[in-house]
Amino acid sequence: MRYARLSVGGRPVWGRVGETDVELLSGSPLEDEPDLIGTVPRATAVWLPPVVPGVFYAVGMNYPRHIAHAKVATPERPEVGYRANNALTGHRSPIIKPREVEGRFEAEPELVAVIGRTLRHATYDEARKAVFGWTIGNDVSARTWQHQDRTFWRSKNSDTFKPMGPWIETDVDALAQTTTMRVNGETRASFPTGDMVFDPFDYLVEMTKHVTVHPGDVLWMGAESTCQLEPGDTVDVEISGIGVLSNPVLLEGNQQ
Amino acid sequence: MRYARLSVGGRPVWGRVGETDVELLSGSPLEDEPDLIGTVPRATAVWLPPVVPGVFYAVGMNYPRHIAHAKVATPERPEVGYRANNALTGHRSPIIKPREVEGRFEAEPELVAVIGRTLRHATYDEARKAVFGWTIGNDVSARTWQHQDRTFWRSKNSDTFKPMGPWIETDVDALAQTTTMRVNGETRASFPTGDMVFDPFDYLVEMTKHVTVHPGDVLWMGAESTCQLEPGDTVDVEISGIGVLSNPVLLEGNQQ
Repeated sequence: MRYARLSVGGRPVWGRVGETDVELLSGSPLEDEPDLIGTVPRATAVWLPPVVPGVFYAVGMNYPRHIAHAKVATPERPEVGYRANNALTGHRSPIIKPREVEGRFEAEPELVAVIGRTLRHATYDEARKAVFGWTIGNDVSARTWQHQDRTFWRSKNSDTFKPMGPWIETDVDALAQTTTMRVNGETRASFPTGDMVFDPFDYLVEMTKHVTVHPGDVLWMGAESTCQLEPGDTVDVEISGIGVLSNPVLLEGNQQ
Repeated sequence: MRYARLSVGGRPVWGRVGETDVELLSGSPLEDEPDLIGTVPRATAVWLPPVVPGVFYAVGMNYPRHIAHAKVATPERPEVGYRANNALTGHRSPIIKPREVEGRFEAEPELVAVIGRTLRHATYDEARKAVFGWTIGNDVSARTWQHQDRTFWRSKNSDTFKPMGPWIETDVDALAQTTTMRVNGETRASFPTGDMVFDPFDYLVEMTKHVTVHPGDVLWMGAESTCQLEPGDTVDVEISGIGVLSNPVLLEGNQQ
């Protein structure tokens, strides 16, 4: 099943995504079994981030090639960081490049696990069962700020820097897929989605030794590659079996 | 006015706190003008964190004495980090010290600004008007983890490490108050709440150059002093004109 959140009359509404239509739902499938309350054609859907997390977890270095490229040590244990909800934006919404940003302004294509159950002291098998589904994230990063600042607050969490979507796919072996990043239709990276140092369930086992994760929390799994973005570009992140997250890049002040 | 969130029949309910009673409200005063739906005696109230933020912002080094003690450079500009909602706990709820934690396990008494308006590109005056009210936070920290780990995930965000409360006070000049920390009734620190390098409005002006803050977001303002906590202790953080946030400390596995 594919679950999305759409903007309908200016309000967020959950939906079940079909081939041509999105069936609108009375509530969140993460909380209960919602009723069908209407239908909109998929072609006219306005996509929101498919969930607004209570906690927005993000993994840093987690792909061997990225680690080698960054010349850092391979992590010896799963350690997690955070991103911020203000930065979330949906499929097809613009990534706004701030006018102050100079130098590298990059996309990072990531698999995202969406948590469906409350979990603490989880086994690997309990962690597997607690993932409700999978979506796609683009961890847009302004490198000059990343190196200048004490935290990632504006380098990775400025408004629109965290596209997520288009939907949550519940029926896929996410670690057996291929992640592909394209800019203006040209492939810039393609790698096995599951080629990770630690997989999402390893992370959840380690995290839940100390923290409780809740339904709706998200875990972004890190990127294998990055690529430069310029205003006017459109960046697509595709994970086979899940979908395509596509966002145009606009210069601040030039958006509608 | 003092607004709190209570657990009533296992569900979170907003309330308006009086001298002897808490008037229960139909919804959040951050979103609309809620109706009165009941009353509970203040003595029997079960206090929850007074808000669950969309984004949980936290300032690091922001008091001259703390900066001198930590032997770090005084920040040249306001930079903000994050904490995680799983760690929040209310007034009178226990801080659970994990069995694995060795060495310094410390309290940090902090002023917390609760945002009431959506804000972007704010002036100092707009930032002042966007603060709905003030509460108290205790930024409990396990220092060995803080130094071992790449992020603050478990050192500052393990479950129960972020007591916040007891309520939001809307009518106080928060920066003209005194913060006092007591352990088992004995004063361990007392300092002018407003003796900051950058005040909350300075932070909001800088932050909103890049991020949108929303009603319910919180901004923890950093601590001037820390003190060691042991299982069996009770730690109080008082900010004059706001209230007292009090939490017992228990060793993991010894809680009820």
